[in-house]
Amino acid sequence: MKIGIIGAGAWGTALAQAFAKGGKDVILCAREEEIVASVNGQHENALFLPGIELDPKITATGEPMEAAACGVVLLVPPAQYLRAACASIKDIEEGKPVVICAKGIELESGKTMTGIAAEIIPQATLAVLTGPTFASEIAKGLPSAVTVASSRLWDAENICAALATRTLRPYASDDLIGAQIGGAVKNVIAIACGIIAGRGLGDSARAALMTRGLAEIARLAEKLGARRETLMGMCGVGDLMLTASSMQSRNYSLGFQLGQGRTLDDIMAERQGKSVTEGVTTAKALMVMAEKYGVDMPVAQAVYKCVGEGKPIDATIAEIMDRPLKGEAA
Amino acid sequence: MKIGIIGAGAWGTALAQAFAKGGKDVILCAREEEIVASVNGQHENALFLPGIELDPKITATGEPMEAAACGVVLLVPPAQYLRAACASIKDIEEGKPVVICAKGIELESGKTMTGIAAEIIPQATLAVLTGPTFASEIAKGLPSAVTVASSRLWDAENICAALATRTLRPYASDDLIGAQIGGAVKNVIAIACGIIAGRGLGDSARAALMTRGLAEIARLAEKLGARRETLMGMCGVGDLMLTASSMQSRNYSLGFQLGQGRTLDDIMAERQGKSVTEGVTTAKALMVMAEKYGVDMPVAQAVYKCVGEGKPIDATIAEIMDRPLKGEAA
Repeated sequence: MKIGIIGAGAWGTALAQAFAKGGKDVILCAREEEIVASVNGQHENALFLPGIELDPKITATGEPMEAAACGVVLLVPPAQYLRAACASIKDIEEGKPVVICAKGIELESGKTMTGIAAEIIPQATLAVLTGPTFASEIAKGLPSAVTVASSRLWDAENICAALATRTLRPYASDDLIGAQIGGAVKNVIAIACGIIAGRGLGDSARAALMTRGLAEIARLAEKLGARRETLMGMCGVGDLMLTASSMQSRNYSLGFQLGQGRTLDDIMAERQGKSVTEGVTTAKALMVMAEKYGVDMPVAQAVYKCVGEGKPIDATIAEIMDRPLKGEAA
Repeated sequence: MKIGIIGAGAWGTALAQAFAKGGKDVILCAREEEIVASVNGQHENALFLPGIELDPKITATGEPMEAAACGVVLLVPPAQYLRAACASIKDIEEGKPVVICAKGIELESGKTMTGIAAEIIPQATLAVLTGPTFASEIAKGLPSAVTVASSRLWDAENICAALATRTLRPYASDDLIGAQIGGAVKNVIAIACGIIAGRGLGDSARAALMTRGLAEIARLAEKLGARRETLMGMCGVGDLMLTASSMQSRNYSLGFQLGQGRTLDDIMAERQGKSVTEGVTTAKALMVMAEKYGVDMPVAQAVYKCVGEGKPIDATIAEIMDRPLKGEAA
């Protein structure tokens, strides 16, 4: 069974490489003509995954429907482009498994990734692939594990079987909502953890904040109909602990720089055009969701105060530490 | 209300300092006469927490019953000495809150810390204090959060109220078993994570392994009568993510050195007498528990094979990666 991948950024290309090295045929769809040419000709994606020699079992195309004709189709655009990616395969075959690998919430609508896909390609069997992965590591063939979720466990298990390789281990779940919330919210918690580290407040404080952040994620997920325990898997705890403890994460490193006393404008100006720091925008979307669903999210709120309202970091930290404890579960 | 602390190692002394800086009177009981003298005279515990100027509100004593006369009593011995620490206050007042801060399982009996205490001081109101903390950070007044668990939530909440300071935030739980399992098992998972890091297998693999390790901890805890969700708090996820990602952890750094190719004998010889690496012995205790309760613990088992049976690391890693996925929950 061929695997079609739509979106040839670092993550889409890394997944293509992992599957191809695992013996599977892959069609990788890129928007940029030069990527199509360089993957097919030089077996490299010089733009988004430079320095990795791609497996010849990866064929690139500029036609989304060509990738969508494969047995399993992965959508790997940036979160805010998922709507467009779905539209590009809107005539996809009835029942075809479509696995969304973008993490996030659509800012305009506040919708989850599968919420968007269900509007545009309702005929597909929707799933998500999410978990603790750095593209560069997966592209090099280092071991990793992810959550693959679909509404029916049967579908999730079959997709796992189709995607599994010796180095990429997918775990099946039928909690489609739960699997998406962790990946979307973790970037905000990662900014908070970065701030703590940058401010020199120690590893104990960072671990405590990460844990409270996880509790917030779980509360929100539960309100949205997910199961709490889903957040204990790769898509929750796993993804959070990777993102919120590594300078490889753009969100964590942003927080770290804020904690060291740099201004947001300054940091963002330096990054302009080079990378997206999703947590900054997600923080705002979360404030809307927290209010809409009546969920207490003090860590996300503190991050929003710092990055959205320009409140001084020390005042925000003090506010969090002085919150009364009564009524908060351990 | 005075706080009595029995055990003046790094952690007991750090807790004493945190409480005293938070405005509470503390009686710290040390076995070593020179510690009693130096805490009372020079306001320092030069042996176990050098370089920290202790608050004068800490009074040291050599008499355990003097500390046990305080309103709340903390027991902070090494895990394998808890039995002796309990015996030293066996005539403690009926109903007195006794908070155990040692993490581990008694190797001889396979019992939890509160299981031991319930045998010797059944008249006390037993609780545990556990979570992600490095003693040196807490002693410096850096922020932290912990789980305080007792069988009745009411007791846990009252103990939290008695112990809370602005920098040390306790969260109450009534899951006494769940709160203890994370702290006991995490050291074994930390060795595994260290091995992965030392072997150069990447942050993604380490996060994945930590997550699977958490699933093992939760499975074991559930079999022992705990609630799964307890493991999502400070005492589970929090403690694990701190221990399994920092070279400050003796267990993680042991794994790291093993992963780099050094032998266990070599590493242990270097550490001899200076520090205890609890994960090595806990791994063996876990094998007994896993079999007794019929719990699948592949990560702990792999660690035991490496540190207990001398199996080569690469062969053990390969075995874990080739485990069939069917039937494992995400």
